Amino acid sequence: MELTEKTVSSELIFDGKVVHLYRDVVELPDGGTSVREIVKHLGAVCVVPVTDDGEIILERQYRYAVGQVLTEIPAGKLDYAGEDFASAALRELREETGAVPRELIDLGDFYGSPAIMGERIRMFLARGLSFTERHLDEDEFLDVFRMPLSDAVRAVMNGEIPDGKTQCAILRAAKMLGI
Amino acid sequence: MELTEKTVSSELIFDGKVVHLYRDVVELPDGGTSVREIVKHLGAVCVVPVTDDGEIILERQYRYAVGQVLTEIPAGKLDYAGEDFASAALRELREETGAVPRELIDLGDFYGSPAIMGERIRMFLARGLSFTERHLDEDEFLDVFRMPLSDAVRAVMNGEIPDGKTQCAILRAAKMLGI
Repeated sequence: MELTEKTVSSELIFDGKVVHLYRDVVELPDGGTSVREIVKHLGAVCVVPVTDDGEIILERQYRYAVGQVLTEIPAGKLDYAGEDFASAALRELREETGAVPRELIDLGDFYGSPAIMGERIRMFLARGLSFTERHLDEDEFLDVFRMPLSDAVRAVMNGEIPDGKTQCAILRAAKMLGI
Repeated sequence: MELTEKTVSSELIFDGKVVHLYRDVVELPDGGTSVREIVKHLGAVCVVPVTDDGEIILERQYRYAVGQVLTEIPAGKLDYAGEDFASAALRELREETGAVPRELIDLGDFYGSPAIMGERIRMFLARGLSFTERHLDEDEFLDVFRMPLSDAVRAVMNGEIPDGKTQCAILRAAKMLGI
């Protein structure tokens, strides 16, 4: 079955700091047309940092869009289009937690809201951590803390970690490590 | 540590069919200000439908925002603000696959992109399926297929299912069912 939609026209509605909103008219597989409101985004990374003691480093951060403090793994946007995902992951991990890993394992891609958002998040597992000072962006306010990976899996299963990328990356990291 | 951001002003930039984009000025925890570009959204549901044979029902769907055909579990938007998540899940499951479950288990919430999007997705596991006819929305084009849940877990771990909610809900359902 042919599923692809083709762009008929594309209108830039808002070109913001983070959000780039387009209203496109598309041709549907049956030849009809429809409107797609989509948000373009540079892309992002997230990292499950596992210490030699089997703990992971987590952050509590207020998320204005959902009006809640969420527990998340370290994450951040790419600095520019086409930036190497692994470099961005190392930078964000170091800035937010001070951690520098000996090993960075690619866990694959995560599309958080593919009906609307073009944002692709590359997930990583980081091991063999040593620590330097952290350097937060000036409008970032984070509480950093640690938790055994096995407890984090339980917290995900109990619904205590609603952030999608964090649930997904923790479950994948734990399964990969046999925890 | 105080993490909450308070709204100073809120401007509606675009009031679309699906996307409602706001540009808000917020007061940061340290008293400074920053801008938050956020997308409000009614909310959505997704369902891992497990047959009596241990297979799950999946869909292939073109996602214009990411320019790819993605493999996803059945999902859909709420029809109106405050709609009951379980009712919406039963409706979307039936419309897209024809399945009617005897049992619907709440797997908790999923925020796909909480830095930008207010969208909350409630995840469910559906069991004891019987089948009726499906009724797609007129601009929906889906290929529906089945796969053993254990194979779907492997596909997630191999990076073949980049959709976030699908990865997350499959891993949670499999873990809950001991698979």
